[in-house]
Amino acid sequence: MEHIRSILGRRLRLGVIGGAPGSFIGEVHRIAARLDDTYELVCGVLSSNPQKALQAGKELGFPSDRLYKTVQQMLESEETRKDKIDALAIMTPNDTHFEYSMAALDKGFHVICDKPLTNTLEQARALVQKVRETDLVFCLTHNYTGYPLVRQAREMIVQKMLGDIRLVQVEYVQGGRAREVQVSPDMPRAWKYNPEKSGPSLVMGDIGTHAHHLLRFVTGLEVSQVSAEVGTIVPNRQVHDFAGALLRMSNGARGVFWATQAAAGVENSLSFRISGSSGSLEWCQEIPQRLQFFPLDGPAQVFTPNGPGILPAAAKVSRIAKGHPEGYLEGFANLYTEAAQAIGNAILKLPHRDYDFPGVVDGLKGLEFIEAALLSSRSGGSWVSTHQVP
Amino acid sequence: MEHIRSILGRRLRLGVIGGAPGSFIGEVHRIAARLDDTYELVCGVLSSNPQKALQAGKELGFPSDRLYKTVQQMLESEETRKDKIDALAIMTPNDTHFEYSMAALDKGFHVICDKPLTNTLEQARALVQKVRETDLVFCLTHNYTGYPLVRQAREMIVQKMLGDIRLVQVEYVQGGRAREVQVSPDMPRAWKYNPEKSGPSLVMGDIGTHAHHLLRFVTGLEVSQVSAEVGTIVPNRQVHDFAGALLRMSNGARGVFWATQAAAGVENSLSFRISGSSGSLEWCQEIPQRLQFFPLDGPAQVFTPNGPGILPAAAKVSRIAKGHPEGYLEGFANLYTEAAQAIGNAILKLPHRDYDFPGVVDGLKGLEFIEAALLSSRSGGSWVSTHQVP
Amino acid sequence: MEHIRSILGRRLRLGVIGGAPGSFIGEVHRIAARLDDTYELVCGVLSSNPQKALQAGKELGFPSDRLYKTVQQMLESEETRKDKIDALAIMTPNDTHFEYSMAALDKGFHVICDKPLTNTLEQARALVQKVRETDLVFCLTHNYTGYPLVRQAREMIVQKMLGDIRLVQVEYVQGGRAREVQVSPDMPRAWKYNPEKSGPSLVMGDIGTHAHHLLRFVTGLEVSQVSAEVGTIVPNRQVHDFAGALLRMSNGARGVFWATQAAAGVENSLSFRISGSSGSLEWCQEIPQRLQFFPLDGPAQVFTPNGPGILPAAAKVSRIAKGHPEGYLEGFANLYTEAAQAIGNAILKLPHRDYDFPGVVDGLKGLEFIEAALLSSRSGGSWVSTHQVP
Amino acid sequence: MEHIRSILGRRLRLGVIGGAPGSFIGEVHRIAARLDDTYELVCGVLSSNPQKALQAGKELGFPSDRLYKTVQQMLESEETRKDKIDALAIMTPNDTHFEYSMAALDKGFHVICDKPLTNTLEQARALVQKVRETDLVFCLTHNYTGYPLVRQAREMIVQKMLGDIRLVQVEYVQGGRAREVQVSPDMPRAWKYNPEKSGPSLVMGDIGTHAHHLLRFVTGLEVSQVSAEVGTIVPNRQVHDFAGALLRMSNGARGVFWATQAAAGVENSLSFRISGSSGSLEWCQEIPQRLQFFPLDGPAQVFTPNGPGILPAAAKVSRIAKGHPEGYLEGFANLYTEAAQAIGNAILKLPHRDYDFPGVVDGLKGLEFIEAALLSSRSGGSWVSTHQVP
Repeated sequence: MEHIRSILGRRLRLGVIGGAPGSFIGEVHRIAARLDDTYELVCGVLSSNPQKALQAGKELGFPSDRLYKTVQQMLESEETRKDKIDALAIMTPNDTHFEYSMAALDKGFHVICDKPLTNTLEQARALVQKVRETDLVFCLTHNYTGYPLVRQAREMIVQKMLGDIRLVQVEYVQGGRAREVQVSPDMPRAWKYNPEKSGPSLVMGDIGTHAHHLLRFVTGLEVSQVSAEVGTIVPNRQVHDFAGALLRMSNGARGVFWATQAAAGVENSLSFRISGSSGSLEWCQEIPQRLQFFPLDGPAQVFTPNGPGILPAAAKVSRIAKGHPEGYLEGFANLYTEAAQAIGNAILKLPHRDYDFPGVVDGLKGLEFIEAALLSSRSGGSWVSTHQVP
Repeated sequence: MEHIRSILGRRLRLGVIGGAPGSFIGEVHRIAARLDDTYELVCGVLSSNPQKALQAGKELGFPSDRLYKTVQQMLESEETRKDKIDALAIMTPNDTHFEYSMAALDKGFHVICDKPLTNTLEQARALVQKVRETDLVFCLTHNYTGYPLVRQAREMIVQKMLGDIRLVQVEYVQGGRAREVQVSPDMPRAWKYNPEKSGPSLVMGDIGTHAHHLLRFVTGLEVSQVSAEVGTIVPNRQVHDFAGALLRMSNGARGVFWATQAAAGVENSLSFRISGSSGSLEWCQEIPQRLQFFPLDGPAQVFTPNGPGILPAAAKVSRIAKGHPEGYLEGFANLYTEAAQAIGNAILKLPHRDYDFPGVVDGLKGLEFIEAALLSSRSGGSWVSTHQVP
Repeated sequence: MEHIRSILGRRLRLGVIGGAPGSFIGEVHRIAARLDDTYELVCGVLSSNPQKALQAGKELGFPSDRLYKTVQQMLESEETRKDKIDALAIMTPNDTHFEYSMAALDKGFHVICDKPLTNTLEQARALVQKVRETDLVFCLTHNYTGYPLVRQAREMIVQKMLGDIRLVQVEYVQGGRAREVQVSPDMPRAWKYNPEKSGPSLVMGDIGTHAHHLLRFVTGLEVSQVSAEVGTIVPNRQVHDFAGALLRMSNGARGVFWATQAAAGVENSLSFRISGSSGSLEWCQEIPQRLQFFPLDGPAQVFTPNGPGILPAAAKVSRIAKGHPEGYLEGFANLYTEAAQAIGNAILKLPHRDYDFPGVVDGLKGLEFIEAALLSSRSGGSWVSTHQVP
Repeated sequence: MEHIRSILGRRLRLGVIGGAPGSFIGEVHRIAARLDDTYELVCGVLSSNPQKALQAGKELGFPSDRLYKTVQQMLESEETRKDKIDALAIMTPNDTHFEYSMAALDKGFHVICDKPLTNTLEQARALVQKVRETDLVFCLTHNYTGYPLVRQAREMIVQKMLGDIRLVQVEYVQGGRAREVQVSPDMPRAWKYNPEKSGPSLVMGDIGTHAHHLLRFVTGLEVSQVSAEVGTIVPNRQVHDFAGALLRMSNGARGVFWATQAAAGVENSLSFRISGSSGSLEWCQEIPQRLQFFPLDGPAQVFTPNGPGILPAAAKVSRIAKGHPEGYLEGFANLYTEAAQAIGNAILKLPHRDYDFPGVVDGLKGLEFIEAALLSSRSGGSWVSTHQVP
């Protein structure tokens, strides 16, 4: 993959919204943007508090004429600069993704946005429409698809190494919300416990959409119908903390989905098992440098990044030699770097190409999945088509 | 645990029905009976073909006056012997479990029966009634509960080391029926593909009941309601090969269940994750010598048979020192040996005690679970109470 | 493999020396003998204390005319019986292996003896000579070679799937002697801390010979030369608790050996890595149901007992279907059952065949290895040939 | 840890020597420097070929007045700039580390140098002397010490959680040189096969010093004496590809060391097991996000980066939340970032502090270990003191 600097003669100029110093996801986005030297972070509004925003910009070393107090100020100022930003990365609470994305696209900036796309289907559909109209790049950071062995799994399925896909299992199990908590406004990420900000289903927005997208990405299939229960298991809580679903996939495959943030002591266990007519694949995010393949005939195989048997689609997202693990940040960076290719391509007005990073339509699919699961759950487990949610 | 020979002054005399030489499960039962030197296998009808039954008896070295051609002949002959058998072990196709169990109990023999208990709820209920009336020992070989670390998991939950149980996951994934097959009468276990013999749902009878019972055994909870899909995914097949279910447990915990025999290349992946308010447990049958405990606070712990932290209820079913793995046969033998204790107790007319091996009521619960899942599946995923299946 | 009962028309009659009820290794031997229904345990002297010996015989249910107080009494009595024992299994402290083995062979009994063969090279050589003269079967229970995947590893090497063997690593790490102990005569296995009984090097006799034999068994190579340090690391102890050695193998391969019983908290980590010109194999006894193969080209493979890719030499020592773990006891039983084949063969005076179980020459090689390592250690690490130890 | 930008008001200016685009280690250094936004890469001579050096500088986007053809030109030019570089990172073939390091220190630049420090003990000693005289920062990139769980292991030992260290095992096994090769000058890293460039022992310089340093870093002990064999096992090769050693540590602990690049199919298995009087630790670089602790009493524990039980010394080198793996690049970056702290401190003329990154003395210890092992190997395995190598 040719480096963006070679294509454009410069790094892309990036602004950020959200992710104040000390925030988990803000730091992740900034490292991901920096890792492959494809972006130059030139400005940002890292807090909704104007003073904190200014302070954070100084801390990050932004030029003095690019220290902004508000998103609006940043957008208006950048729009008029000769060296204006190419793209905006959004890592704010969920309820603002829509507003900021729309505003950025309106100003002609490409967008890299954290998941979930929006809090409502209506917003998601409007955003899909907007991206189509503006023809700008929109990257949604379902970062787990950036792992080399997730790419390997996908490509093995594309190449029919599993035969016809028949059975799928995906689960995302965390323990981060296993405790009963007294929510106070000044605790970190307090907004998560407020459904108005975090959306109709916290567990689904936080991690369920990751699991759903990972399954779609790897299999190339859509979830057609769900029979689900989504609810709250930890006492004294307003937001959802578990979601189970049976799945019918677009090719007729059957499956099961499980997501929870209430599994005490479990760290970040996002995993899948995919079975086709000629083999099964298993992967877990906690040991992302191992992909197990169980062929119908022959002993189990273990794939490693850049190791033997790795297909080009996977090899191209490893930076280093086999046996040297990469992790979460590198997977996240892979999306940033692929988005940079797309943005460079757009800047140079080259013909459209296919990219591997998730986009606005993937975000819409995630919202449809959430809504279908909630509808099924409310209706006593009946099967709901993801294509028919209102 | 005092050895049965010390209690009775002799080994128990055992007869078997089914399990001809070369059959997987027949050999397993016989090794399990022999392992702890608690039983003496003295007779059996290992085939429904009288000549083969005779031949098998000779091969196993039964005394000449105990070579039988039919079950009826064996039961009638044994009934009148002074040294008659104490117990009968049944390992025949599912549709005959009921008939043979009833006949054995009628003759006053204790019973060790392979799962599933019966093919119909009606039979299961009748058998429960019969066992109650005869007051004989009935052991149902849900053998996975015999693993030391399954006992450890159960006891940790009994002792509230996980706090209140909130979330459960159990899955049993195999690949043994991933291939399309042309069923011929003389293939091994051809009866499995015939629903009249294998019951209303092959995957549920074969492995689903194991997973269901394991979950109940470990958590001490009942499955109260299920929302399920049970079906067939491999083409050209009359029997079920996958089953997914969402679970509501008797204490309000939520969970997910997944069983399939169509996951190409997967061997015998029966596993659970149980989460309570203060920690989670994970175990998989393929590496049964490891039990992972994730406390809410503190690093993950790994328990091993007879290793540090092992509770007496688990230690008593290990035969050897820590670091020396035992396996499937030893777990199976644990049930046989515990049943021997109960039978010895009954022979000596000592007061009833509690035992850890699964019994006839567990078998009934399994049938109720199957029927509830099938009913839910037929009714489009609606929640069905396991207590209300007709 | 045809069952011994079919060959002889009866089980083999076995007597035991040592292994009082409650001893770890005694119970192991008895289960191993029983597991495949090839032996009938008919007598034994389980303790050097005559009263305890009698009591143990009663507990095990030996016939009243076969309750013996001493080994001598047993040997003399059995020698004259029409239904005399076929074989004697010896599981006493190391310093008595020689005496009992010689006595048993003198009376014409086949022998199954626990390792190490003897405490001295001189005894070992005499025993080799004796076995040759008597032409009786002698099985030395280096039980780890009974694991199916150890057989698989060996057969893969025989079939040149690793190419030329170049590098070997074998280690046996335990924590059972990590504590400083005050040795008292009545503690279990107190004899181990007495070099007169346990031999010139406790760690080498206890586990080092297992590691050494495993390496030879798997690779088919001999250790030609060693440069070693053998010593004591836990304070206040007379016996060796660690041994390290560099190895030169008979084909020129190089390697490393490490054995200790002082690694606090480690259970029973016997493992090897063997590398040839076209791939490497790794196995660890704690998870014996997995064998990893790293081919020079292509992804790592994981073999499982009776699973895909398992060669006949390995498959024949699995009793059950893939995915159902067997363990230490089954591996031990495999040696007993193979020894039974050899004994049956000898009884029927059939031509000699090759067997996989370790024998008296393997025991001698173990003693030579111990002596060579000790000699090297005493001489400051210089290379010592195992063929030249005095 | 306060960011270097906050301390200095700017990023550190870095130049590089070696690591042309496409080289494994060059890209690693540059990412490591960039990851935490502590360095700005402003110039470099990435090739010994002047035209390629210029071209590479352009590709990396260096300013036009900082495009250099030779190291000498760079050093002379930078020395006179007002915005001159703060530090030089050296990633050239081993035989040039000494020359470039000396030159950089002479010009007053801090140095970050790849391992091994030099090819000869004499050079290493001179370099130690030079660093002492100049009082400049010297970071040697034994990067494996940058992993969070290596830091955890070290700190657990510092805090006596293992008690007294008694036994150590360290191994570094790779398969990268398992094939016989025809060395041609234009193959990648051809210099490695030339002892004049790669030093007296390729396997020791390449990976043995990593293993040696890791052991010292984690235990806080020195290797006092070695009994070793270092040699070549793959046919038709001039350089060493395996090294085994028995170890006597500075506190009397005993251990074993094994390093090879000829283990076909093995990727990058650097691992250790350290046992003390109250527990053992195990870690392997291929799954660096797991550290196993086996306490003398109590079940095994598994530590994860930023997870429960992680001590501050380890937590401070994780960037992200538990359950999200970091890898090789992040560990490498940790050294760069710690070196930046030291460099910033030096620039501000603040008092010296202790840092965790390896330095010039560690490099000297590595050379002493190589020489002692080679001396022992040549003298037939005799014990050689690392303090007495000539």
